[in-house]
Amino acid sequence: MAELKGFVPPLSPEGRSSVVPGPPWHYSGDLLTIEYRAAPGAVGRWLPDPVEPAEDDPDAVAVIFADWQSCSDSFEELLDPVRSQYKEAFAVVRCQYRGQTYSRCVYIWVDKDFAIARGLHQGYPKKLGSIHQTRPHPYGPAPRIEAGARFGATLAAADRRLAQTVVTLREPSETNGFVNAHPMAHHRWLPSIEKDKGLALDELIETGAASFEAGQPWVGEAELALFDAPTEELARLEIREPIAAYYRQVGVVWDGGRLLESGTSGAAAS
Amino acid sequence: MAELKGFVPPLSPEGRSSVVPGPPWHYSGDLLTIEYRAAPGAVGRWLPDPVEPAEDDPDAVAVIFADWQSCSDSFEELLDPVRSQYKEAFAVVRCQYRGQTYSRCVYIWVDKDFAIARGLHQGYPKKLGSIHQTRPHPYGPAPRIEAGARFGATLAAADRRLAQTVVTLREPSETNGFVNAHPMAHHRWLPSIEKDKGLALDELIETGAASFEAGQPWVGEAELALFDAPTEELARLEIREPIAAYYRQVGVVWDGGRLLESGTSGAAAS
Amino acid sequence: MAELKGFVPPLSPEGRSSVVPGPPWHYSGDLLTIEYRAAPGAVGRWLPDPVEPAEDDPDAVAVIFADWQSCSDSFEELLDPVRSQYKEAFAVVRCQYRGQTYSRCVYIWVDKDFAIARGLHQGYPKKLGSIHQTRPHPYGPAPRIEAGARFGATLAAADRRLAQTVVTLREPSETNGFVNAHPMAHHRWLPSIEKDKGLALDELIETGAASFEAGQPWVGEAELALFDAPTEELARLEIREPIAAYYRQVGVVWDGGRLLESGTSGAAAS
Amino acid sequence: MAELKGFVPPLSPEGRSSVVPGPPWHYSGDLLTIEYRAAPGAVGRWLPDPVEPAEDDPDAVAVIFADWQSCSDSFEELLDPVRSQYKEAFAVVRCQYRGQTYSRCVYIWVDKDFAIARGLHQGYPKKLGSIHQTRPHPYGPAPRIEAGARFGATLAAADRRLAQTVVTLREPSETNGFVNAHPMAHHRWLPSIEKDKGLALDELIETGAASFEAGQPWVGEAELALFDAPTEELARLEIREPIAAYYRQVGVVWDGGRLLESGTSGAAAS
Repeated sequence: MAELKGFVPPLSPEGRSSVVPGPPWHYSGDLLTIEYRAAPGAVGRWLPDPVEPAEDDPDAVAVIFADWQSCSDSFEELLDPVRSQYKEAFAVVRCQYRGQTYSRCVYIWVDKDFAIARGLHQGYPKKLGSIHQTRPHPYGPAPRIEAGARFGATLAAADRRLAQTVVTLREPSETNGFVNAHPMAHHRWLPSIEKDKGLALDELIETGAASFEAGQPWVGEAELALFDAPTEELARLEIREPIAAYYRQVGVVWDGGRLLESGTSGAAAS
Repeated sequence: MAELKGFVPPLSPEGRSSVVPGPPWHYSGDLLTIEYRAAPGAVGRWLPDPVEPAEDDPDAVAVIFADWQSCSDSFEELLDPVRSQYKEAFAVVRCQYRGQTYSRCVYIWVDKDFAIARGLHQGYPKKLGSIHQTRPHPYGPAPRIEAGARFGATLAAADRRLAQTVVTLREPSETNGFVNAHPMAHHRWLPSIEKDKGLALDELIETGAASFEAGQPWVGEAELALFDAPTEELARLEIREPIAAYYRQVGVVWDGGRLLESGTSGAAAS
Repeated sequence: MAELKGFVPPLSPEGRSSVVPGPPWHYSGDLLTIEYRAAPGAVGRWLPDPVEPAEDDPDAVAVIFADWQSCSDSFEELLDPVRSQYKEAFAVVRCQYRGQTYSRCVYIWVDKDFAIARGLHQGYPKKLGSIHQTRPHPYGPAPRIEAGARFGATLAAADRRLAQTVVTLREPSETNGFVNAHPMAHHRWLPSIEKDKGLALDELIETGAASFEAGQPWVGEAELALFDAPTEELARLEIREPIAAYYRQVGVVWDGGRLLESGTSGAAAS
Repeated sequence: MAELKGFVPPLSPEGRSSVVPGPPWHYSGDLLTIEYRAAPGAVGRWLPDPVEPAEDDPDAVAVIFADWQSCSDSFEELLDPVRSQYKEAFAVVRCQYRGQTYSRCVYIWVDKDFAIARGLHQGYPKKLGSIHQTRPHPYGPAPRIEAGARFGATLAAADRRLAQTVVTLREPSETNGFVNAHPMAHHRWLPSIEKDKGLALDELIETGAASFEAGQPWVGEAELALFDAPTEELARLEIREPIAAYYRQVGVVWDGGRLLESGTSGAAAS
């Protein structure tokens, strides 16, 4: 019989068709991170069994915009950049599992299918969106990375604007924030093909970078607005208290994660 | 703990965030179907265990373009049509499993994320593409559905054209073709989050319409061209002998499928 | 010297490059028209010399969504439908010039460049937008054209939703509304390439269909919402009093217009 | 009567609606320039009266990809980056007019409407396209600007790939090439609204940067491929002999041009 190749469907005889080649995946990108506190208890509403709210500062949220170039181990996507460039906007919270603190992505929008496919693998709950983010540049009107520099970013999906921010850099920082600073604890859920039979896949996994390099982070202030939409609940993570905003350029390798447990989330496909 | 709602991620407190609400899913659409024979043995290269080539006419292929409006049981997406309209292009072959003939989609491109999410559930190996298809119209230069009417359709992905066709209708037909005429036998595959641990999900499922209504099919001739691309193998299903082409308007309800078997495909995430 | 060919730039040796071939242009499309009255005097603010407010009902506005297939006299674009299909949303008012009543488009968004190029020629002030409109269909959940049928339509630009409507059909109608029912009186304006030198082109033109065929119009009620945005003033044509809403399928030929006068608008490129 | 404001249509009471605010326009961007020689006499076929082929090396062509952030004098578009970021691909040749050498853009594709509007003003014959270009980055797999760095770029329009290149940097260079190094001599053409009445606007203009800053140019080698398409003639500027390829980051201000002459091109809207 046929031996099909590829990391994810479509599998095919030569294995060229897979939406994305298998890991390791390499990334160059710019991160704009806005941290704030939501209402007491707000974040807990997004944390299913067996993950629990973080003990310290449980309602901290990071809204992150990222402008990426990514590739597989062949690096060939970089030279056909429609296959390597994408942007994303996501919301990260912290949670606790077996005494450890994890980060956890509760919303994420991207603008390419290979990014959706990777998210499916890594437990990022990806949708398509339209994301834009000011880029630093050494000449002309675009900002340098320096005190007073201003970066804007916006997110839309289904022809509605969902989020927008303007970040003003103040000074170099020791950190790039604390909310998205842990390994990720994500669920991978897929409903059974048969109705009312629950989940066919229900895994809690841990995922994080295999290697990481980065430039000087900068800290500053952000204006951030989240807008409601019929098919989104991001705006329910209402902004009660701004924390800070960060800008950082990074290089990342991702190369697989770890299964924590399976079949225990109690989430029902409904 | 939080009870999260929704059919697929992102699950959320109110369940509004799911990329797509759960079935039943309702569809109105126009199908342009081009059938041809590939080289002897060609189709078998896409059929992994435990499915086998069809006994009769095993190398028949249908390339299908479809222009859809779809919605959940609330019908609300129809009134916010960015959430209901999408187009797709796909390639279907026939196969055999436990003595029964099935149809099987080996490639499919769509232009919306909710369609990707449904495909993931139903075992359609979806990618994003740009699809266009002539629509019938009662006035002006667009074709009526009648003898001599011509419909064009094109598919591109990653900024490369992958397929194009022009179909000329000849006469009403008793069928809408024979390749996409069976229940679908699809695999649902997802690699383990841990490297080199094989598949976390490996299911063979059966899926098909819960109900179906349709207009008069028309049959005619097609010019069809498939183009090669670095990340596609569609053109390897080379056109050796045209069979026929069809046009039909349909209404479909999809409401779940059936698990045939699990863990047996031998496909490896590589 | 070279003789360049084509209707509009890029002109080229063979004349294939023009963004759009020259007229006649043929259209098949579906129109969703929502008429309302804005505040007294509101429309007049969009009417420069030498056009004046209509005498009768001067603040009537039509917001129109249209789903088109169009082509040149070769009809070839219909078979490569990425070159023929487009959608648009526009706002039309009435005005008066030399004792005659004209319709006039004050805003219009389209989703293809060939439509922008035609608009430039015809004096339609076109921008790019994302437009969606429910289509009638004989099967499945999409509406038939009949009493009680509901059609939604939305407009977004620069990742912000600008307008949305839901129209419910009530009964066949003798008209398709009265605001967009006259020849169009449009300006064609282009600033001088030299700063502060005013306009290089300043024409008032008349334009309308060379031929027209259409189905039965239907009348009904609309919910219509217009949203503000930093780069749009459409929402300033505030809805004070709904008039009616219409649905109609049409076939149109456009084949040139007529120069009314030139150099008199007093508009300054500022 | 109403005084309408704005640089280009739609003019409006507040002047916010104009597709693009008036100049000066500020740009930050990365340029990838590939120079080659076409067949003897090839370039002359694109040069209408009164411009003539350059005396020296008349068939040199530059295909240029550019990744821009641009804004008006308010700089506000930079913070709503969907309104400032765009990409373009264009072909430039040289010509001669009244004894002076000019550069001249014969094809250009962009991905935003504000860029189309600026091109219309400046005589760039713009179409919509999909353009991608590798970006330099200090971390991860994307290239630094250094010897051996490789940058890819692609252009598609109407769902067909029209051009692709991979440039490998070799060493710092004294120039960024010679083809796009002169003031531009462009035509601004618009047909009469009345059929067979020729051009309503027929201007030869000179345009160039009001100010310019830039980083170190790099020179290297390129693979460049141009693909044919039914609506493009770019591939007719066939590559006979590669010259060199360049990479440079620039900051530019544009603030108006100069009318050279009017009504003399002899081009006919056909």
